[in-house]
Parts: sequence; structure tokens; C-alpha cells
Amino acid sequence: MTPGTMLAAVSHEGESHFRLERVPVPELGDGDVLVRVEGASINSSTLLRWRELPWYHRLPAIIGIHAAGTVAARGRHAFGTAVGDRVHVDPTLPCGRCDACLSDNGVSCREGVVVIGSDPGEGASAAARERYAHYSSGCFAEYWRVPATAINRVPDHVPFPVAAGLGLLGVSYHALTAARPPRDATIVLTGATGGNGAAVVRQAPLLGVGRVLAVGRSAERLKALRELAPEIVEPLVLEPGWERDDGLTRAIRERTAGKGADALLDFLPSGHAITAQALFGLRTGSRAVLYGGDGTEQLAFDYVRAMPVSQYRLLGERGHGRRDMLEILGHLEARRLDPAPLVTHRFPLEAINDAVDLLDAHRAGADVTKWFVTIEPAAP
Amino acid sequence: MTPGTMLAAVSHEGESHFRLERVPVPELGDGDVLVRVEGASINSSTLLRWRELPWYHRLPAIIGIHAAGTVAARGRHAFGTAVGDRVHVDPTLPCGRCDACLSDNGVSCREGVVVIGSDPGEGASAAARERYAHYSSGCFAEYWRVPATAINRVPDHVPFPVAAGLGLLGVSYHALTAARPPRDATIVLTGATGGNGAAVVRQAPLLGVGRVLAVGRSAERLKALRELAPEIVEPLVLEPGWERDDGLTRAIRERTAGKGADALLDFLPSGHAITAQALFGLRTGSRAVLYGGDGTEQLAFDYVRAMPVSQYRLLGERGHGRRDMLEILGHLEARRLDPAPLVTHRFPLEAINDAVDLLDAHRAGADVTKWFVTIEPAAP
Amino acid sequence: MTPGTMLAAVSHEGESHFRLERVPVPELGDGDVLVRVEGASINSSTLLRWRELPWYHRLPAIIGIHAAGTVAARGRHAFGTAVGDRVHVDPTLPCGRCDACLSDNGVSCREGVVVIGSDPGEGASAAARERYAHYSSGCFAEYWRVPATAINRVPDHVPFPVAAGLGLLGVSYHALTAARPPRDATIVLTGATGGNGAAVVRQAPLLGVGRVLAVGRSAERLKALRELAPEIVEPLVLEPGWERDDGLTRAIRERTAGKGADALLDFLPSGHAITAQALFGLRTGSRAVLYGGDGTEQLAFDYVRAMPVSQYRLLGERGHGRRDMLEILGHLEARRLDPAPLVTHRFPLEAINDAVDLLDAHRAGADVTKWFVTIEPAAP
Amino acid sequence: MTPGTMLAAVSHEGESHFRLERVPVPELGDGDVLVRVEGASINSSTLLRWRELPWYHRLPAIIGIHAAGTVAARGRHAFGTAVGDRVHVDPTLPCGRCDACLSDNGVSCREGVVVIGSDPGEGASAAARERYAHYSSGCFAEYWRVPATAINRVPDHVPFPVAAGLGLLGVSYHALTAARPPRDATIVLTGATGGNGAAVVRQAPLLGVGRVLAVGRSAERLKALRELAPEIVEPLVLEPGWERDDGLTRAIRERTAGKGADALLDFLPSGHAITAQALFGLRTGSRAVLYGGDGTEQLAFDYVRAMPVSQYRLLGERGHGRRDMLEILGHLEARRLDPAPLVTHRFPLEAINDAVDLLDAHRAGADVTKWFVTIEPAAP
Repeated sequence: MTPGTMLAAVSHEGESHFRLERVPVPELGDGDVLVRVEGASINSSTLLRWRELPWYHRLPAIIGIHAAGTVAARGRHAFGTAVGDRVHVDPTLPCGRCDACLSDNGVSCREGVVVIGSDPGEGASAAARERYAHYSSGCFAEYWRVPATAINRVPDHVPFPVAAGLGLLGVSYHALTAARPPRDATIVLTGATGGNGAAVVRQAPLLGVGRVLAVGRSAERLKALRELAPEIVEPLVLEPGWERDDGLTRAIRERTAGKGADALLDFLPSGHAITAQALFGLRTGSRAVLYGGDGTEQLAFDYVRAMPVSQYRLLGERGHGRRDMLEILGHLEARRLDPAPLVTHRFPLEAINDAVDLLDAHRAGADVTKWFVTIEPAAP
Repeated sequence: MTPGTMLAAVSHEGESHFRLERVPVPELGDGDVLVRVEGASINSSTLLRWRELPWYHRLPAIIGIHAAGTVAARGRHAFGTAVGDRVHVDPTLPCGRCDACLSDNGVSCREGVVVIGSDPGEGASAAARERYAHYSSGCFAEYWRVPATAINRVPDHVPFPVAAGLGLLGVSYHALTAARPPRDATIVLTGATGGNGAAVVRQAPLLGVGRVLAVGRSAERLKALRELAPEIVEPLVLEPGWERDDGLTRAIRERTAGKGADALLDFLPSGHAITAQALFGLRTGSRAVLYGGDGTEQLAFDYVRAMPVSQYRLLGERGHGRRDMLEILGHLEARRLDPAPLVTHRFPLEAINDAVDLLDAHRAGADVTKWFVTIEPAAP
Repeated sequence: MTPGTMLAAVSHEGESHFRLERVPVPELGDGDVLVRVEGASINSSTLLRWRELPWYHRLPAIIGIHAAGTVAARGRHAFGTAVGDRVHVDPTLPCGRCDACLSDNGVSCREGVVVIGSDPGEGASAAARERYAHYSSGCFAEYWRVPATAINRVPDHVPFPVAAGLGLLGVSYHALTAARPPRDATIVLTGATGGNGAAVVRQAPLLGVGRVLAVGRSAERLKALRELAPEIVEPLVLEPGWERDDGLTRAIRERTAGKGADALLDFLPSGHAITAQALFGLRTGSRAVLYGGDGTEQLAFDYVRAMPVSQYRLLGERGHGRRDMLEILGHLEARRLDPAPLVTHRFPLEAINDAVDLLDAHRAGADVTKWFVTIEPAAP
Repeated sequence: MTPGTMLAAVSHEGESHFRLERVPVPELGDGDVLVRVEGASINSSTLLRWRELPWYHRLPAIIGIHAAGTVAARGRHAFGTAVGDRVHVDPTLPCGRCDACLSDNGVSCREGVVVIGSDPGEGASAAARERYAHYSSGCFAEYWRVPATAINRVPDHVPFPVAAGLGLLGVSYHALTAARPPRDATIVLTGATGGNGAAVVRQAPLLGVGRVLAVGRSAERLKALRELAPEIVEPLVLEPGWERDDGLTRAIRERTAGKGADALLDFLPSGHAITAQALFGLRTGSRAVLYGGDGTEQLAFDYVRAMPVSQYRLLGERGHGRRDMLEILGHLEARRLDPAPLVTHRFPLEAINDAVDLLDAHRAGADVTKWFVTIEPAAP
């Protein structure tokens, strides 16, 4: 039996911290499952969307899109699910029939993307708007209603705080596959000390990467990153004056005996001068996978040198596909991947605002190691 | 309003013709739509499964899996559908997450394939068995309950009797794409005078095929086939004695100036000596797309000559993918494809047993032109 | 018999026009053929390299790399060639064994690219330097010594002035294939009125392109371009003020009913503001094939909007591959392609400096239609 | 200085053993190199072609096509080679411009394949016939004349007897790549105890294969094979009566928990009942890479079960491509691959007939471990 009400962290307009409220447990449609949230992941992007991007949510709302838990109840047509199943929720709901979805690129579904709990916008299709009307709540609560088609079974040996971060693993795994690194490749990683960067270095060996040149400003943070995969991570601290003298380009070329690196993964929320310099550290014909972050900053580079002369491939990417998740679950199942060290902080739901404070401090520059921050159920 | 009961053609065990019965209109789940069947396609395979392959259905049952119609009612979570929509039903229900589904090969879904109305078998997963329990009825009735995820919107200008055959177009379109014909290719087509063969020649120009060598025994039937696409179809009637003297292989090589054809599409329900001879009519490195039919007959050929020497690619294929259907709907929308001439016979639902008689006569060898046979609504 | 000396147009350092001189006919190595030049193509890039990029040639030199003609003599190991063969010379000499060459990307051969008559530079491999030492002369002469591996047989019905431009056809064909346009695609073409642009519109129908939005400043030149392929070319003249108000982006979106175009081919030697605006005229996930031109101008665009949000693919490309040439020759053979209208001017070798004057006037802005300019043999 | 004559093992018509003769050292063309043969590989196929397939050679001839050595002399246009270079010779001479060559499938070059020392046949092109006229001698001699384009540089740490077998490594590497094994795949290998089979198991870890089910009749030979890669090889000895009761199919399914293996590599010179049974040990959609051997035996299998139902992909393959060799040389360079244990026997050139006796005994069934047999230079 699920109770009639539940504890939830609710986001209100104009506020910077959550309000803990008791709200009704959502009713299930025939195709839904009710997931008891055993772990939810929170990061700065989550907060940014609530606080600064008003079109993302219809506030007040329960936000949060990365979670894992157990099936507490199921609709009569939630085929193939059973109460008690350990599951991860993939919050993107693709139509499954358009050109983008058939290329496993559901984040660009032509129908208008629905990420559970995120407003698809006025321009979205009727289907997308209807979907959002039903799936408008996120995971920062005791229970989460999601469609049965959105869940993946999680192996028993994977703890929930780890499973909660599968979406972040998915993004960095996708970045790695999109880069198509040749065997024993040397890749350049910017934004290395964020959650995506950490997930990249932890998963890079699965794709046969030989070396990650991790670019950052803080030697301290890069050192902590290195501990996640010491055999492949090579910190590359930006030297003073790098902006003026092509210092980053030169450093990459020096570390690769002049040949250039094999690929670039860029997760830099801002400061695209780093991106542009990193680009010219690549060998001819290389791929640069560009996730970037938020903002409206320009990326600028020497067109002729980069494109016809160096034949670079600049690939804009977002999110991940279902195949990425299938492969990650396979790696977990076979115990080729252990993401546990990525979880640096855990807070109970009642203390979610402590997690907020941590994220804000980190963004403000506090020299603390922070990758995945997980919210766990309230103490019983 | 939909009425409480409907007319249905029911298949009973041990019988060869349908019984017309009034049965309850199925109740909808939240994710379902009720389709008023405006056109349903019937062919010999449909009958064969009912009569001779007891594991396909749990009789008595309403069978039939190829239909088009209008949405008469929808569940509250049948997102993106509206009453009145003109739709085609894609009867395969893939899980969408396994390796096969992510390769758009839902007919081999690892979860255990569910084709609406067809028993997935005891070995299938719990999910598949649950899905079948709900979607156990087919389309030879006034209404058909299907999940909203199974429907494709059909352009207004495409009549329902044509839309009913989209599944057959899908199979032949998939065969053509799997063959990857080079520009202006010459392809060999066996089983040419059946419904799949006819759908191949009608769609071959869409893939840039230059010539179809249509292999058959009946000059009469091949002549009728040629009228579907006179600019590309070249009948190839089997000459007496072809079995003994490699007659078919030689004929193909003669028609291709000794170079060999570019691909083989094989839809032959039996008589695999034709298949084997057609194979050696291909040039080195060619693809043979093998759909075959039913039965346990052996395919036998000279291993060394076919494989290491000729580097043939023998590709076993079944059904079609969602991308095939997306592309076909695009061709229809742009009016690059007109499948209307493929529909040779139409019967009202009350006269479905006349369709059965026609199919039986055709299979017995009657020299009649028959490609798509459509069942239409009973007269009001 | 070939004579001992020949007429040649020789480029000297610091000069802007050719000197016509008599020089020895080159001696053949075992693997060489001597081609009597029946048509040679000249364009502004040819002149630019001689006049402004001193590392391209060791002057004085015979320059020119695009030509067709007849085999006048052959070495004893010029396998598969015969005196009298009608041939086109592919001036890029790939090693055939490195990663780039095995991807048919010989223009980025790891060994150090050798383009006949162009200095591979000090950093090139010993192999490249040896190759250049032997193949240091180009085609602006009566005869041209080339390796037998560099020639393609040209169909009899293709005149030499047309065959001389096969290299330019190759570049634009490669751009089209790299864009992978979907069926009936709308593509945006910048630098449309140059030789590459003209070759694009003439060949676009071969790849199923439905519409080319040809961007330019001169309505007059665009009108002439349109005559090359009136059924697909749609001129898009830049309106005054386009730089300030996203005029080009908006124009493309208007012409595509708001959906955006399917691909961008950019051949703009300068003015990358046009490139950046054209980019945002594309739909999500589109490819931009960037050839650009010469110079060190920056390409700058909104990173987040272009890359993670729009998932653009920016592909730097150069030259063409051997498969492009194989396919073009196939199209010529099948008479699916007639490039004759691309040849706007023909000059005898003695009058090559008149061609120089024409190119200089065109570059300076003279409103004259000029695509392929061909040099032909001196009158006998 | 190279001497005027050399020792050679000459094959004469109707004879079963070589005659050791002194013959002139071949003269070099401008594009040739003279290789001092430091290691040559000999196997039963080599002997078969000489003794039983009269069209392969124009006897008497020096046969043998797998060798490594040092460059003893070079023509003036053998670009990029130097006397003293340690090299392997790739004996296939592709045209480099046809559809097959551009797909790195030089063994099916449309021009008519030239393997050095092997007659391309009367049907070959003029180019092929000319090439053969010059390159009609093989490697069972002190020196070998080959075109500079046919040589690959071999890393210093790879001994010549090992480098002599690079062609065999290439074939098995190609088989592995053609099978596209998923990560940790279980593959079935027939003909496992021959040279190709041994080379497969030694290289399989490079492609992430997890397990090789090595099928054979001799437990003894399979045990020796297992020592080459004990962590992945699992011998599967055919049990008496396997032909009648689908014993091999059942054994494979048992070893894979009922799911079936992921791919089949078939190198069986005869006995295609094994091939057919192994096929049905695969899971749906798997690839079977079929190299087979010699002869005209039929491959026969249940068509419907294999093709539409199981969606098998049967891929006829021959030889290897240049990319295979590039990758193998990369693995050798990085010391990820050590093929030394594959060389089981070494004979000096004077004792080449002892190697013949060994091969004949092995073929007759002697229970001796034999993979690569190398001929080395005569004692000085």
C-alpha cells in the first residue's frame, strides 16, 4: 500500500531554496508505475533552470529528473513491470517514430521533446503538451509517477545513490561514443572537474581511450579528478597568459609529441576561448564533441585553418540515447564499470536545501571535490 | 458514440472459413485507441497461420493484422491522437529498449515479439505475455483496439483500401533497402507475382533501381506484373529444363551482358532451387535478401563458389522497421508513390469468405491477377 | 613520336603573367605516361598560389593541376595504359596505405600530400619529397608527365575542355555527398556564383536534392547561375542591412516554411558573417560542409544555440576522394550528367595571359559570367 | 651489391617437391624494390595450387606469396623506400580506383586481381596481364622483386619468421572484424586447428572477444590451440554421432546458456555439415563469416529457419584488406600482439622439401601441432 500523501521538495517562483510540503501521491494511469524514490541526483543545472529559465517549469512544481528507486505500484497496462523492481527512470519520452527518435536521438524528437517535469513549450505538438500535462512532476519527493516505458531495470549490486546518476553517466558516455576515439586515443577534456567530466574519465577506459588530457584552472580539483582513473588522467593546468600565446594549443601539442590529440570533449559552461584553443590541439580530421553549457557566448576560431585545412568535425551534442543507457547497464551488469566513487555527497530529502547550499558554494568557487550529489529518502 | 457490439469475422479451430458473429466492442485502456476499420488486408499467410500453425493464435479468435481506419475513441493517455484521425496500424509492438529494437528491428525484439493478435509463445517474457493478453484481437471486425503508439497518421489523399496494405509495402520496401542497390541497379526478383513481389516493383523506382528481372513460371502473371512498372520490369520466364542446365543462372547472366545482376530479392515460399540458381546470377560481392516463405525445405549451393570466391552476402530478413514506414509515408505524402494499382480485389466484411475462396483458388494455381485483397466495412 | 621540346607557360617569381617558353619534353620513368594536354583548367586559386603563397611552388615552374588529354607515350610499367587513351589526370598522389588514404581522404595523406607540381613542404616525409622531385611540373604546357596511377579513362563523348574541369566537379560532388542530403532536400549554397557553386547546382540533381537556395550579392550573377539548373536553383539575394538584422537567417527560414534548410554548403572565400547566418537557417541536426577559401578570418557564432541546442554538424572538407571521381565518371558514362554549360571560356595556350586578365577582372568584380576557364593546345 | 644469381626453389609441372636451382636475380624497374627474403611462409594451400590447380601458375615457376625481409636494392622511383628497410610484402596488387578497391576489397578488384606470382587468367584486363608479366615470380628464393607500393614497414622488434606470416594474420583479423563481435562476445570457430584458426584465437582479444568455442575432431590439437590463448579458448570436441542428432548445434547452445553464440567464423576446408550445424548455434541476427576452403561441396541448411526466422547474415569473405594490415601493424608496434607462438616450424631454404613433407604428413592426419611454417635464408 502506498500512502495518500507524501513529502515533497517544492520549487516556488522567485525562491532559491525548496519548501518541504506534504502533497498527494499521484494517481496512476494504466500505463504508469509509481516509483519510490531511493536516490535522486541534483546539480547546478537543475537549480539554474528553476531560478533563471522561467520557461522550463510551471512553478510551483516538483522538479528533478534523475532518480532511481523501487516500483511501489503499477497500472494494469504497465507491461513487464512488477512491484519491487529496482529501476532507473529515463526522463526523456520520445515519440519513437520520427526521424530523430529512429536515430536514437530522442532529445531532438520532432514531436516536441518531453522531459518529465519540463514544459515542452507552446510550440510543441499536441502530443507533447498532453504528455507534459500528465507527467509534470519530477523526482524530488517520496514517490514519482512515470510511464512504464521510461524505466530501466538496474542490477541488484548497484546501489541506488549510484543508479540515481545514470543520466549523467549517459551524457558522458554519449560524448565518448560520439567522439569515436581510435584505440588508445588521447582525448582532450574541458570542463573536466564538473560532474560530466568526472563521469567521462571513469568511463573512458570502456571505450579503449588511452589518455585523457584534463584541462582545468584548479590544480587541486584536477588532482582529485585524477584519482578516479589514475592510469589515464593527465591534468593540464592552464598556465598564466595562456589566452595570449596559444598556451593551451601548444601544451596539447607538446603532450602529444607534436601530432595532436585524437578528439576533444567540451563540457565548458563558459569561456569558449579554451574550447577554441583546444580545437587546434587536435590532429587533422579529428572530432570535437561540443556540449558546452548555458549562455550566449560566441565560439570563434580561424575558419580556414580549422575547417578546410584541418578537416575538423565539430559535433553539437545533447543528452544521450537509449543505446548509451543499454550499454552502460551492460557494463554495470558485467561489473566492468563501478561509478560509486563519483558520488561525493548524499543528503536525506529533508535536508535537500543543504545540497543546494553545497552546489551554490561550489559554483562560487569553493575548492571542494563535488561530482554527483544524491538526495535520499527521508529517514523512516 | 461507439455501439456496444460489433460485427466480427471469427476464426474457429479446424474450420477453413470465418464465422460472422456479433461480439462486444473492446474496452479501452488509458493508452489505447479504438480504430474503426475502414480497410483490412488479407492474404494466404493469414489463412495459413490460422489453419496450419496452431501456435499462432488461441482460437477462437479475431485474426488479421493489416488495417487502416479512423480513430473512433481514445483513452485519456492516448497522447497525440484525436477522434477522426485517419490512421494505419503497425501491428508489431516492440519494447523499444533492447538491442534489436534500437536497431529498428522490432520483429526480433529480445523481450519476445508481440504482433497484435498473435501469441508470442510460452517462452516469451512476462511483458510480452501481458501485452498479448490485452492485445489478443485482430482487425477482421468493425473495430480494433490498439495502443496509441502503434498508429501512423495517413495522408488524406490515400484511400483506406490502399492504406490497409501499408504493411506489405513495408516488407517489400525493407527488402529493397536491405539490398542497398547501386544506382540504376539490375535486381533479380523471385516470387515476383505474389503481393510482396508486386509491391517491390511498384516501389523499386523510389530506390533508384533501373531494372527488375522478375522470375516466374507463368508468362501471364508476369505480364500483369509488368504493367505495374513497365519501364523497369523485365519478365524472365523459367524455360523447361532450367533445373538441370543452370538455365536460370545463365539467363540472368545473359540479360546482364555477363556481368551478373546487382542484387537478389527472394520471396519464394518454396522451390529453393530457383533461389540457389538466382544467386549465381549475381556479380561478386552482391547482396541476396532472403525472405522466403514457410516450410522446412533446404537451401543448398556450392559453398566455395558462393562464399569465399563470390563474396556473396546472404541476408535473412523478416518484416520491416519503423524507418521503412516513415519513409513510405513520406513518399506517399509527396505523391512519389501511388500504390493504388496494387489493390486488385475488395470485399465487404460480410463477404470475407469470398475473399477466402479467391485466395484459395489463387494458391491452387488459378491464373488470376491478385496482389492486395482488401476487406471493407459492412454496408451501413 | 614526341618532339624533344614543347611550348610551356612558365611562372616566374614576382611576376603576374606567364612567360611562354620552349622547354624540354620530360623523360618518362617506367611507371609514367606522357599526356598531351588537350584541355587545362585555370582559376583564381591557381594564380593566388603562384603570386602570394611562396611555399606552394619552387619558381620558376610550370604550374596547373587540372587537365585532360591523350596518352602520347608510356613507360614500360605504366600498366593498363595505351597510347591514344583519352584521360583525365587526378593530381593528388596518395600513399594508399595510411589511415587517411584508406578512408579515401588522400588530400590528408599522413605521408605528406603530394599534389603534382606543388611542393609538399619541408615537413613532408622522404617519400613525399622524392615524389615531388620527380613530379614537380604542372599542366600549362603541351605535355605533362604523370604517373600511370593518376589517370582516369574519360568517355569518348566527353570533350576535353569539359574533362579538364573534372577536378572542380569532384570538389563540389564531394561537398554534396558529405552533406548527405535527405531526399528532395533544400540546401543552402554560399559562394554560389563561383566555379564550385556552379558545379554544385549542375550536379545536385544527381544526389536527389530538390532545391538549392543560392546565396549571393549580385542578382545578375545568380540569374546566370539559375540557368544551369532552373528547376532547382532559387536565388537568394542578400538584402541591404542583412548583417545587422539576421536577414539571411530569416530569409532562409521564410523560404523553408520555418522548418529550416537541410544542409549548408559553404564555398565562401571570405565574409564569414554570411556563413554564420546561413548556419542558423538550418534545421536541428543538420550538416554544414565548410570548404571556405583562403585567409585567416574568424568564424564566430553562438556556441550553445548552434551546438548543444541545434546539434549542428560542422564538417571541414577539402578536395575530393577517388570514389567521388569514380561516381562522376559513371554519371558521365550513363549521360546523367552534362557539365558542358559550365565551360564559359576557352583560350589557346599562347593566349593564356588573356585568361589571366579575365580571372583578374572577375575577381575585381566585373559582372561577367565565369565558371570554368579552359586552356587549349596551341594551334598547330 | 646484389649478386647476379640466386638460389631458388622452383616448382615444376607434375612434380610434388621443389627443385633447388640457381637463377638470375631479377632486374628492377623504376618502381620496384628487391627484397632479400628473410622469412617466407608455406602452407598446404601453396602446395595445392601448384599441384592441383594448373591455372594458378605458369610452371615452371618460383611460387610463394607470404614473405618478409630487407630491402637490398631499389629503383629510382621506389618512393619512400631505403636499402636496409625491414619490410613485409603484401602480394595483392589492387588497381586502387575501382569500386572494390575503394572499399578496401582489393582481392575482388574489378580490373582482374593480381597476386604476385599468380596468373590472373585469360579473362583479366590488359592491366592485370601486364602486371603479371612483370611480377610473375614468388618468394621461395633468396630475393624477390616487388613493386614499392606492395611493402609495409615492419617494427624492429618483430622477427622475420613472424613477419613472414603477416598475411595469415591478416586473413584471420579480417574474419574477426567482418564478424563485428559485440563486447565480450562468444564466437564459434570451425577449422580451429589450422593456421587461420590459430591466428584467430591469438588476435581475438584485440577485438574484445570474450570466448572462442573452438570446434574440432582432435582433442589433442585443440588442447595445443588452447595454449595460444588459454583465457578465451574453450575446446569443443565433436562427439560421436553429432551428425545425426544436431550434436554440434546443441553443444553450442548448452555452452551459451541457451542464448546462442554471437558469431561464427568458418575456415573449414571441407565437411560443411559442421558449418551448417554451427550456424544454428547462433543467436538471432548473428553474422557468420564464411571463408571455407577448396572444393565444390554443397552447403545446405533449413532456409526458413536460418534466414527469415533467425535473420542470419552469411558473409562470404576472402583475403584481407589494407586496413586490416594497418591495424595489425599498429598492434604489433604497440606490443599488444605477439604472434611468435604461432610459428611452429622453421626450415632453411635448402631444406624446403622437408617443410613439404611436414605439411603433407599433417594433412594426412599426423597428430602434430603445426600452424605457421617458415622458410629462412640458406646458411651463408
